[in-house]
Amino acid sequence: MAPALLLAVLVVLAVVAATTEVSASASAFAVASNATAVMAGKLNVHLVPHSHDDVGWLKTVDQYYVGSNNSIQGACVMNTLDSVVDALARDPARKFVVVEQAFFQRWWAEKSPTIQAIVHKLVDSGQLEFINGGWCMHDEAAVHYIDMIDQTTLGHRMIKKQFNKTPRAGWQIDPFGHSAVQAYLLGAELGFDSVHFARIDYQDRKRRKADKGLEVIWRGSRTFGSSSQIFTNAFPVHYSPPDGFGFEVLDENIIPVQDDLSLFDYNVQGRVNDFVAAALAQSNVTRTDHIMWTMGDDFNYQYAESWFRNMDKLIQHVNKDGRVHALYSTPSIYTDAKHASNESWPVKYDDYFPYADSTNAYWTGYFTSRPTFKRYVRVHSGYYLAARQIEFLVGGSSLGLFTSSLEDAMGIAQHHDAVSGTAKQHTTDDYSKRLALGASKVEKGVNTALTCLTSSNGTCVSSVVQFSQCPLLNISYCPSTEEAISATKRLVVVAYNPLGWERSDFIRVPVNDQNLVVKSSDGNIVESQLVEVHNVTSNLRKFYVKAYLGITTDKAPKYWLTFQASAPPMGWNSYFISKSTGAGYNSTEHVSTVVSPSNNMIEVGPGPLKMSFSSASGQLNRIFNSISGVDLPVQQSFLWYRSSEGDASDSQASGAYIFRPDGNTPTTVSSSVPLKVIRGPLVDEVHKKFSSWIYQITRLYKNKEHAEVEYTIGPIPVDDDVGKEVITRLTANMATNSTFYTDSNGRDFLKRVRNYREDWNLQVTQPVAGNYYPVNLGVYVADGKYELSVLVDRAVGTSSIQDGQLEIMLHRRLLKDDGRGEPLDEVVCVDQDCEGLTARGTYYVNVENLGNGAHWRRTYGQQVYSPFLLAFTHEDETSSKSYNVAKGGMMDANYSLPDNVAIVTLQNLDDGTTLLRLAHLFQAAEDPKYSEVAKVDLKKVFGKRTIKELTETNLSANQKKSEMKKLNWRVTGDTESGLAPVKGGPVDSRALVVELGPMEIRTFLLKF
Amino acid sequence: MAPALLLAVLVVLAVVAATTEVSASASAFAVASNATAVMAGKLNVHLVPHSHDDVGWLKTVDQYYVGSNNSIQGACVMNTLDSVVDALARDPARKFVVVEQAFFQRWWAEKSPTIQAIVHKLVDSGQLEFINGGWCMHDEAAVHYIDMIDQTTLGHRMIKKQFNKTPRAGWQIDPFGHSAVQAYLLGAELGFDSVHFARIDYQDRKRRKADKGLEVIWRGSRTFGSSSQIFTNAFPVHYSPPDGFGFEVLDENIIPVQDDLSLFDYNVQGRVNDFVAAALAQSNVTRTDHIMWTMGDDFNYQYAESWFRNMDKLIQHVNKDGRVHALYSTPSIYTDAKHASNESWPVKYDDYFPYADSTNAYWTGYFTSRPTFKRYVRVHSGYYLAARQIEFLVGGSSLGLFTSSLEDAMGIAQHHDAVSGTAKQHTTDDYSKRLALGASKVEKGVNTALTCLTSSNGTCVSSVVQFSQCPLLNISYCPSTEEAISATKRLVVVAYNPLGWERSDFIRVPVNDQNLVVKSSDGNIVESQLVEVHNVTSNLRKFYVKAYLGITTDKAPKYWLTFQASAPPMGWNSYFISKSTGAGYNSTEHVSTVVSPSNNMIEVGPGPLKMSFSSASGQLNRIFNSISGVDLPVQQSFLWYRSSEGDASDSQASGAYIFRPDGNTPTTVSSSVPLKVIRGPLVDEVHKKFSSWIYQITRLYKNKEHAEVEYTIGPIPVDDDVGKEVITRLTANMATNSTFYTDSNGRDFLKRVRNYREDWNLQVTQPVAGNYYPVNLGVYVADGKYELSVLVDRAVGTSSIQDGQLEIMLHRRLLKDDGRGEPLDEVVCVDQDCEGLTARGTYYVNVENLGNGAHWRRTYGQQVYSPFLLAFTHEDETSSKSYNVAKGGMMDANYSLPDNVAIVTLQNLDDGTTLLRLAHLFQAAEDPKYSEVAKVDLKKVFGKRTIKELTETNLSANQKKSEMKKLNWRVTGDTESGLAPVKGGPVDSRALVVELGPMEIRTFLLKF
Repeated sequence: MAPALLLAVLVVLAVVAATTEVSASASAFAVASNATAVMAGKLNVHLVPHSHDDVGWLKTVDQYYVGSNNSIQGACVMNTLDSVVDALARDPARKFVVVEQAFFQRWWAEKSPTIQAIVHKLVDSGQLEFINGGWCMHDEAAVHYIDMIDQTTLGHRMIKKQFNKTPRAGWQIDPFGHSAVQAYLLGAELGFDSVHFARIDYQDRKRRKADKGLEVIWRGSRTFGSSSQIFTNAFPVHYSPPDGFGFEVLDENIIPVQDDLSLFDYNVQGRVNDFVAAALAQSNVTRTDHIMWTMGDDFNYQYAESWFRNMDKLIQHVNKDGRVHALYSTPSIYTDAKHASNESWPVKYDDYFPYADSTNAYWTGYFTSRPTFKRYVRVHSGYYLAARQIEFLVGGSSLGLFTSSLEDAMGIAQHHDAVSGTAKQHTTDDYSKRLALGASKVEKGVNTALTCLTSSNGTCVSSVVQFSQCPLLNISYCPSTEEAISATKRLVVVAYNPLGWERSDFIRVPVNDQNLVVKSSDGNIVESQLVEVHNVTSNLRKFYVKAYLGITTDKAPKYWLTFQASAPPMGWNSYFISKSTGAGYNSTEHVSTVVSPSNNMIEVGPGPLKMSFSSASGQLNRIFNSISGVDLPVQQSFLWYRSSEGDASDSQASGAYIFRPDGNTPTTVSSSVPLKVIRGPLVDEVHKKFSSWIYQITRLYKNKEHAEVEYTIGPIPVDDDVGKEVITRLTANMATNSTFYTDSNGRDFLKRVRNYREDWNLQVTQPVAGNYYPVNLGVYVADGKYELSVLVDRAVGTSSIQDGQLEIMLHRRLLKDDGRGEPLDEVVCVDQDCEGLTARGTYYVNVENLGNGAHWRRTYGQQVYSPFLLAFTHEDETSSKSYNVAKGGMMDANYSLPDNVAIVTLQNLDDGTTLLRLAHLFQAAEDPKYSEVAKVDLKKVFGKRTIKELTETNLSANQKKSEMKKLNWRVTGDTESGLAPVKGGPVDSRALVVELGPMEIRTFLLKF
Repeated sequence: MAPALLLAVLVVLAVVAATTEVSASASAFAVASNATAVMAGKLNVHLVPHSHDDVGWLKTVDQYYVGSNNSIQGACVMNTLDSVVDALARDPARKFVVVEQAFFQRWWAEKSPTIQAIVHKLVDSGQLEFINGGWCMHDEAAVHYIDMIDQTTLGHRMIKKQFNKTPRAGWQIDPFGHSAVQAYLLGAELGFDSVHFARIDYQDRKRRKADKGLEVIWRGSRTFGSSSQIFTNAFPVHYSPPDGFGFEVLDENIIPVQDDLSLFDYNVQGRVNDFVAAALAQSNVTRTDHIMWTMGDDFNYQYAESWFRNMDKLIQHVNKDGRVHALYSTPSIYTDAKHASNESWPVKYDDYFPYADSTNAYWTGYFTSRPTFKRYVRVHSGYYLAARQIEFLVGGSSLGLFTSSLEDAMGIAQHHDAVSGTAKQHTTDDYSKRLALGASKVEKGVNTALTCLTSSNGTCVSSVVQFSQCPLLNISYCPSTEEAISATKRLVVVAYNPLGWERSDFIRVPVNDQNLVVKSSDGNIVESQLVEVHNVTSNLRKFYVKAYLGITTDKAPKYWLTFQASAPPMGWNSYFISKSTGAGYNSTEHVSTVVSPSNNMIEVGPGPLKMSFSSASGQLNRIFNSISGVDLPVQQSFLWYRSSEGDASDSQASGAYIFRPDGNTPTTVSSSVPLKVIRGPLVDEVHKKFSSWIYQITRLYKNKEHAEVEYTIGPIPVDDDVGKEVITRLTANMATNSTFYTDSNGRDFLKRVRNYREDWNLQVTQPVAGNYYPVNLGVYVADGKYELSVLVDRAVGTSSIQDGQLEIMLHRRLLKDDGRGEPLDEVVCVDQDCEGLTARGTYYVNVENLGNGAHWRRTYGQQVYSPFLLAFTHEDETSSKSYNVAKGGMMDANYSLPDNVAIVTLQNLDDGTTLLRLAHLFQAAEDPKYSEVAKVDLKKVFGKRTIKELTETNLSANQKKSEMKKLNWRVTGDTESGLAPVKGGPVDSRALVVELGPMEIRTFLLKF
C-alpha cells in the first residue's frame, strides 16, 4: 500500500474509532440517538454550535487567527478550528458551523493531509457545515453589492473546490442592520434557503416577539418579489446562547453540567429546569415547535470540548427529562424543520435599516465612519474590477492571475467591522496595508498587461514600455505626470474604460509646465485646460505623501491639466502630452481665468448645467439645466452635529457605530463664504473656503449635466473638546412629503419616509439619527415636478430631515467611545507631527424632471464606480515606436452594451474558465425606457474570442442555475400582485444572446 | 470479533494514525527527530510541559476539576487532561507530566475504554509520565509524615495498578519551603531519583545562582546521610517558563511563534533569539549542559494544543538555528541527563525552611494559619490510622474497606493549600466537609466493627450493640455520655488503643450526674474524678454545636468525669459507668475541690510533676519533676504580634501565608492573671483567664511527668482594626545559645539557630518571622543541664526569640491580604450571628535532664498523635449480655512493641493484601538506650493470624524493595563520616522478625 493510501485508510479507521467510542458511551444513555434528530410532538431546541469570528475588529485578522495581541482580546481562531475538529471527530452526533472563509482557508492551507481527510469526513457527514461561506461576514450598510458578490464568490468557490459543497444558509448574525440586497441577491440568488441574524431594531423586535413575527419570508426586491424571497430568522435576543448556557473555556460565568454524583455540586435537575424554562420562554415568541439556540459567541470554542462536553450532557439529560427535545443542529436543518412544519409566515419587504438597540443608540454613525478608508475600499473595488478585465484581455499569458493579489484584501475589507469603519485604528491600518500591498502587486500586473496590449507584437517585456499609475492622483501626487516633459520626451496617458459603453470623461493630471499640448492617438490636438493647483491640495500632497509613502516631496506641481478622453467599451485609448510648439494652439485660452463677480448673482458652467451663486454670501442659489429646462432653487451648506457624550438620562455617546447628536440642530459652518470662480473652456470651478478646515470646489464641465463637488474636510477641530459630525446639506425648494430614496448596496433604490417605519409604529426618540440611512450609490428626493439626485463616491450616511432637504454626513471626529469599540478620533502623523484626518471626496448633483433621474443615476453611477484606469509612460519621439496599439478594446467595433446593462464581473478563474456577470441596472418601472428586458450579444462582446461553452450559475458560481433548488413557503396576507417579474430566458448556446430583466444579474462560466 | 476487541484494535489504529500523521508532517523539518533526544556538545534545553493543579485553593477541588466558579479563577482540570491527551496523541514527540492523582483519578474514572487505551499507550511510550504521583502535592510544613506517606501511597498504588508504573521524580514545585522528611523519606525512600521545586529563600537562591548551586545532592536525614540522598533541583526563578514563553490559551501575554510567511508578523528569528538568550542566561547559573524549562503554570493547558503548537515550532526553529538544542523532556529524562554528565554536586543537609521570597515576606504565618482546621486534619489522621487497624482486626468481613471513605478527603487535605491554611474560606470549608463526610462513614464502619469485635460470637448485627462516637468531645458535646445513666442502664466506654504498646491514659467525658461509678471490665471500681464544666466550654458547646451540626443543644452537661483507662496494644478495653450505689465508693473524694491559695506560691500536681504559681500574679514560677529531680524556673504568658498591614518601605502585609509582625515586640495579654486551682485525686487543674478571649487550663495528672495545657483562644478582638497573631511563650532560666530544635513533619528533630542559616550568610530583615519554624510534633530547648520540651496537637509555628524562650503561635486573625490569597479572618456564624473563630487546643510541657527528653517526646508524641479511639454504648444490666469481649487485642498476650517502634500503617488493601509499616521512632544518637536497632516479632504482633507471604517494598508500596534502583552521584566537599547508617537486615520469611535501625521505616505487603 502506498504511504498516502495507508494514511487514508488509517484516517478512516481513526474516525471510525472515534465513532465507535461514542456509540459505546452513547449506549449508556438511551436518548443518544436523538442527539441529531428532531422529534415530532415536542418542542425541539436546535442547538447550533458556532463561533463568531470577526475578520478583524479589535485585533487584526492575523492577530485573531494566530492568537497574538491577546491583551486586547483573548481570541485565536486556530484554537477554534483545531479544537472543533477534534471535538467533532470524537462524537458523530456533534455538529458545528464554519462561517468565515478568510480564517478557514488560512487554517486549511497549513493542515496535514490527515487532518484534511478528517475534515472532509466531517463535512461529508454534515457534522461540519459551511454556512454563509463568504470570505467574511460582510457589512450590509457600507458595502457595495459587487464587493459582496466578489467576497462571497471567493469563499463559495473554494468550498466547492475543496469539499464540493454549496452553503445553504445565510449567517449574517452580527451586521448592524440588514439590507434588501442581502436578502434577495446575496441570499435567494445565491441559492440560500434562509438567512439568520441577531440585530434588528429594538422596537421592531419587541413587536415581532409579541406577534411571533421574528421569522419571516423576506422579499427584499420590489422588482423580484416572491421569486427571490428567503426564510429569515431574526433571533429573539442575540447570537449568544440563553443566559447560563455558554460554555466557553475559562468563561467566568460557565455553569458546567455536573452529572457525576461522586463529585460535589451535582446539578442536573437545576440545569434541566433552566434549559426547559429558557426553551419554553423562547417558544412563546416563536412559530412552530422548533426554536434555535445559537451556541456560541465572539471567538468562542477556543477549546471546543468545553462546549460539547456540556452540550452532550444537556442533550442527554434534557431528553431524558422529556419535556422538550434538544438536538445538535445547523441553520439548514433548522430551516428544513421550519419548512416541513407547513406554517404560514409573515412577509417582510425592503430592509432592516436603521438599526437601534436602545432609545438613543441608533447605529447610523458607521454609515460614514472612517470616510477615507471607505473611499479606499471603494476605489479598489472599481480598480479590481477593471484590473480583472485587463487580465482577461491579455489572456492566459505568463502574467498569471495577478489580480488574485487583491482578492484576500478586498474580501476582508468587506467585513462588518472593516469597511463599516468600526474596527480599531490599528486594525483599520492593517486593512489598508493589505489593500495597498495587494493593489501594488495588481498595479504591476496591470502595467505589464498594458505593455502587452499596447505593443504591436503583443510582447510583454516591460523594458520596452514601462507604465506606472498614480493612486494619489487626487492629492496631485503623480511623479510620471509631474516629470518634465521635453521636446523629445512626451507623456503618454493610457485611459482604460471598464464600462460596457464607449465613454468620454474628463481627465485631470498634475503638471509643471503651462506650455503643453494634448494629442489623441490619431495625432489630433485635444482641447485642454490648465487650472492652478490650490494650496489646500498641495498641502495635502506634502503631508499625506510623507505620511503614507514616507516620501518627502519636492514642490507641488503648478497645474492641473484637464482634457476630455474617450475610450471604447472595455478598451483603452492613449493620449500624448508634449511640449507645445505653438502651431494651432492657443495658450491663452488653455489657461483658466479667475473671474470677479460683477453682479449680485454669478452664473457658472460652460455646459448645459448652470449654477448661480450669490456674489455677496457665496451661497448657491439655483441649478438650471439648459437641456431639460429644469430650474431649481437650491442652497448648499456645511454643518456639523455636536456629538453627544451621553447625558443625565442616558450615558450613550456618539461613536464609531452610533450617531447620537447632542441636540437635533446642527451648527452651520459659515453662512457667508467668499467665492472664487475660475472659468475655462472645459470646466468652470467655484472655490469656496467655508472655514479653515472645509474647502469646496464645484466643477461644471463643458458637456455634462451634473455638478461635481469636491470637498476637503479636516482636520476637524476638537480643541473645544467637542466631537463633530460634518454634513453637507442641499436645501431645495421642493415639497418632498417626508420622502427620500436611498440605494441598497448600490443597487435598488428604497423609499424612505421620515419618522416612519412600514413594519411598526415608530416611536421617535432620535429625530435625526433615527432617520439616517446608508448610501453607496446615491440619494434623491422628488416633488411633483423635479428630482434632485446626489451620487457619492463611497459609502455615507444620508437623510432628509426637512422636506426639500438632503443631507450627507461626510466626516466624523469623535472623542468618546460609544461603548462598543474605541473613540473614532482619526489622526495622521508625520514623525511626531499629528493632525486630525482630512477627508477629500466628491459628490455629484443632478436635477431632472420627475421620472427622468434614473438614467443619470444609473449610468453616471457606473462611471463613478468604474472610472478610467489611468496609466502613464513616457515616449521618446525620436526613437522607434514600440508603442503601437494606442487604442483598442475587447468588443466588436461599434458594439456596446445597452445603457441598462453593466458587466460587473469578467474574471479569469484558476480552473481556466472565465466568470462573467451581467447586471441590469434598472428596477422595474424605474425608467420608462430602460426598465425593460435588455439583450447582450456575447459574441460581439467578446469580439474575436469564441465562446466554446457557457454555463449559467447561481450568483456565487458554485452551482448550476438549473440545479438550484428552492423551498416554497406559505405566507400570511400576501399582497403581491399576480404579475411575475420579468426575467431573461435561457441562453441559446449558439446565439449566445443574454436577456436581462430589470435588476437581473446573470452569472456565467465561460470557456473560450 | 467481539465488540470490545474490535474497539481495542480500532483504538490502536487510531493511535497509529495519529502517529503516522505526525511523522508525515515531521518529515517537513529535518530536526524533528531531535525533539525528544538530548544532543551532546550543545546546551540542551529540556522543555517540561506541566500544569500545576492545586487540589483546592481559591476554588474547591471539584470546582477546579469541573471548571465551575470561574469568576474566582478560570480553571478546569478536565480541560487540561482532555486536551493534553489529544495533543499528545497527535505527535509522539510531545510529552507531558501528570502530577496530582486526586484530579487524574476523577478524570480516569469517567473516561471511555477508548480514551483509557490511548492514555495507556501514551504512558507506555513515555509521552505521558506520572511524577510525584501522590493524591496531591502535599504541604511540607504543616503536614504529618504519616499523612504524607498515606496520600502518596494512595496515588502511587493507583498508578501502579492502572499503568504498572512507578513515578521516578518528586515534583514539589509549589510548597512554601521544603522539609528534610520530604527529601529523604518522601523522596529517596519512595524510590525517587530527584525532587524539583521552585520555592527557596531569595537570599539562598541568589547565592546558589552565583555558585551554580541550585542543584544539589540533598541529604535530608542526619541519621541516614548519603544512603537516603536525592538529586534536588531548585528552579532559578519559578515553575513558569522564562518570560515570553508561556502559551496558555487566551493568555494576555502570549507571543505565538509565527512561522507562516504568508501571514503578517512572522517572528521566527526574534523568537529564536529570545529563546537562545533565555537559555544562555539560565546556563550561566546551572551546572552541565542541561537546563530545565518548566513549560506551564497554575491550571495551564486548558487547551494543550496552544502550548504544543508553539513548543513544536520553537523546537523546530531553535534546533534549525543550532546555537542551543531544545527537546521535549520530563524531570526523569532531565535527571538522567544530569546523572550521565558525571558532574560533582554540592551537598545540602537539613531543610529549606523558612521560605522568604523578599525582605519582609517570610512564609511562616501559614505554619499556624487556620489552627482549628489544622487540628481537624490531625485528629482525622490519627483516627484514620486507628480505624484502619480496627478494619484489619475485624478481618475481611462484610464491612468491606469502609475506611477508604476517608482516603480521598485525607489525601486532599494534605495539599499545600489545604492543611497549610492558605486556601480561601469556602475551600477550607469544603475540605472540612469532605473530612466530615468521610469520617462519618468511617465512624459508622468503626461502630459496626466494634460491635463485631465485642460480641461473643463475632456477630456484626448493629441492633445488638450500637456504638456511637463523639467528635465534639473537646467542647463537651457527647449525647451518649450526657444521656441519663440509670440504675439499669449503664454507659459503656470502649477505648481502642492504636499504639503498639499497652497504654494507660486519662479519659474525660461529660456527664450530668455526680453519683456515678466507673468499673473496669473485670468489675473493679476505677478511681474517677468529677470537675465542673466551665462556662467557657459550655458556651463553646452551645455555639459550635449549632454552627457545625445545626443542632440547638440542651443545657450543657455539668461535669467532666475523668478516669484512667488502659488498653492492650492495638486492642481495646471497656469501662462501665453506672449510677453509684454507695458501696465502697467515696463520693466526696470523687468530686474536685477548688483551692484558695494561702501562700505566695501555690504548688500544684498530684503526681510527679509539680508546678508552682505566684498567688499574686498567677504567673507560673517553676516546674519540678520529683522523679528526675529537675527543677526549672519557667514563666508562661500569652502575647500577640500586631500584624503588619504594610508600611511606607514595603506594602507587604501579614497574611495567611506570610507572617510579618508590625514591630518585633509582641504585646503581653495580661501580666497578672487570677488563679483558680482545682484539686482532685487524679488531676489538678489550674484555670487562668488571661482575658475575655483567652482561657487556659493546665492539668497535672496523678502519674504523668508532663503538664497538659489546654488553651481556648478567641474570638480574637479586631474592633481596633488590628490583626493579631497570638503566641504562648515559655521563658525558662536557660542559656540556650540561640539554639532550639524543631521536628520535620513529626519525625526528625532539626537544630535551629536563631538568625543563622547553615547554607548562607543570613541577612536578618525579620528578626521574628525569619526565625519561625514549622512544628508538627514538638519543639525543645536545652542548656547544659536540662531540656524543656513542648509537644503540640497540630501543626504550629514556633521559635525561640530569646535564649531560654520558646514561643508557639497558636492563633491568627488578620484583616489584610498578604497579596497571595484572601485575608485570614476566620469567622463562624450561627444564623446571622457571626464571631471570630475560637481555637481550642492543647500542648504538653516536659522538663528533663539533658539527654533524657527524647523518650518522652517520642513516646508521648505517639500518644498525642494516636489517642484512644472512644466509642460509647449503653447496656441494660438486666437483659442478657450480648456484649462479651470487653477487652481484646491483636497481639499475643504480653507482647508489645519496643518503645522505639510504632506501627504507622496497618491497612487492608483492595487486592487482599495488608500493608504494614513499622517506624523506628528515634534518630541516631538521640537517646542512649533507644537509638539502637529494634526488633519486631511479626508472628507475635499478629497473634493468631498467620502470615503466608511477606514482601518488603519501598515506602509507597509500589515496588519491591529489592528492585529499587538508586543513582549514584558525585558530590563536592563530602564531609560525611565513613560510618554507614544502621539499618535492619532482610526479613527471614520463617522467623518474621523485623529489625529497624534508627529512624528507619519499613514497609511490607502481607498475605495472611
